[in-house]
Amino acid sequence: MDSSVVVENIYLLVIVTLISVLQNAFFALKVEKECTSQTTQTSAFERVSCANRNCMDAYPTFLAVMWCAGVCLNQVSAAFAGIIYLVVRQKYFVGYMGQTSQSTPGYLFGKRVLFFLVLMCIVGIFNYLLVRHYGKDYKDYVETITSAASALLLIP
Amino acid sequence: MDSSVVVENIYLLVIVTLISVLQNAFFALKVEKECTSQTTQTSAFERVSCANRNCMDAYPTFLAVMWCAGVCLNQVSAAFAGIIYLVVRQKYFVGYMGQTSQSTPGYLFGKRVLFFLVLMCIVGIFNYLLVRHYGKDYKDYVETITSAASALLLIP
Amino acid sequence: MDSSVVVENIYLLVIVTLISVLQNAFFALKVEKECTSQTTQTSAFERVSCANRNCMDAYPTFLAVMWCAGVCLNQVSAAFAGIIYLVVRQKYFVGYMGQTSQSTPGYLFGKRVLFFLVLMCIVGIFNYLLVRHYGKDYKDYVETITSAASALLLIP
Repeated sequence: MDSSVVVENIYLLVIVTLISVLQNAFFALKVEKECTSQTTQTSAFERVSCANRNCMDAYPTFLAVMWCAGVCLNQVSAAFAGIIYLVVRQKYFVGYMGQTSQSTPGYLFGKRVLFFLVLMCIVGIFNYLLVRHYGKDYKDYVETITSAASALLLIP
Repeated sequence: MDSSVVVENIYLLVIVTLISVLQNAFFALKVEKECTSQTTQTSAFERVSCANRNCMDAYPTFLAVMWCAGVCLNQVSAAFAGIIYLVVRQKYFVGYMGQTSQSTPGYLFGKRVLFFLVLMCIVGIFNYLLVRHYGKDYKDYVETITSAASALLLIP
Repeated sequence: MDSSVVVENIYLLVIVTLISVLQNAFFALKVEKECTSQTTQTSAFERVSCANRNCMDAYPTFLAVMWCAGVCLNQVSAAFAGIIYLVVRQKYFVGYMGQTSQSTPGYLFGKRVLFFLVLMCIVGIFNYLLVRHYGKDYKDYVETITSAASALLLIP
């Protein structure tokens, strides 16, 4: 198995993963900055720390779903949904920091994107089982629908 | 490399991952609900938040070990152990929420399942090294033992 | 696709992942011990709990970057950098526990190793795109440089 054959099927996912890592580093630097600065109020530190924690809690779930969807069905749609998720996360983090503590956003975010990725996984597995047991391959058909459906994620 | 060949070797792991993601969503919704409801006591929110955090802390470890075990040795046993782990986690979460704060369950759970999965990884790596250096392949033999051993996880 | 061909390309990464899981278990046992012992001061529990949380926050990021770097470019360098990261993490954890609360180490650690792994990913993707669009493969050349560069991580 040549290494570049593997990379061909995952390089978009790797790129999205790298961007998410850079975003994690940005979040962590914000926490680090609030953590070490002596002059800030406690509430600012608590808010940025809480926003970072909520983002980190959801991170393994996001990575797992995106990679499964990308490997099982279609890496282009999965990577596109991943980018949308990162934009949503950025807005969530900035929104969380700017809020007063009485009106923080909820614990969850990016539900629609994650739901879309889970759906992609299910369709991918279902398609695989169809191929295996009935010899019918709807993959091209499904990939077209998936690409079209991923555009719907752009609707705010 | 055809995509369906890859999916064949991992589809059970993907299914278990999806179930774990749905369970994560269930946990997160519980936290969200306690977070937004104004009438609950602080202790209830703290308990559900703490239970969720303990589960999330262990989640990447679980995913990494399950996938390594599934890829290196045998996906059926790894997926089966993964399902057992999810059941244990569900019981831990529900148990944590129901407890009074004086008698919370510990920080750790599912130790036996994780230990089994780590053992599977070690055996898989060891078998690969044996094949590479001595040309002896005990994989069929090892897989039979692993399948039998995974049944032991059912003992409470 | 024979299973042992897959294992050949990832077995070092699996070994590092296993070591990191054992280290996670060590951290978790420390937390568990402080959590259940009634005689300890609150500050000791808070410190070990915070150190564990900081380590766990960075764990999915580390795993994702190490695996991407290992698959895209060169598993030997990635696994070596992974080992260095685990050593740094161990020192961070022990250092965190030993500190008085006034002088805790920061939130971040292992920045250099993670940066090196991210760089490996970027080089790997870039090399793949060069191969695909221009047919030039600098992989052997790049791998030699990477192996040499990974030695630089040993400098404290």
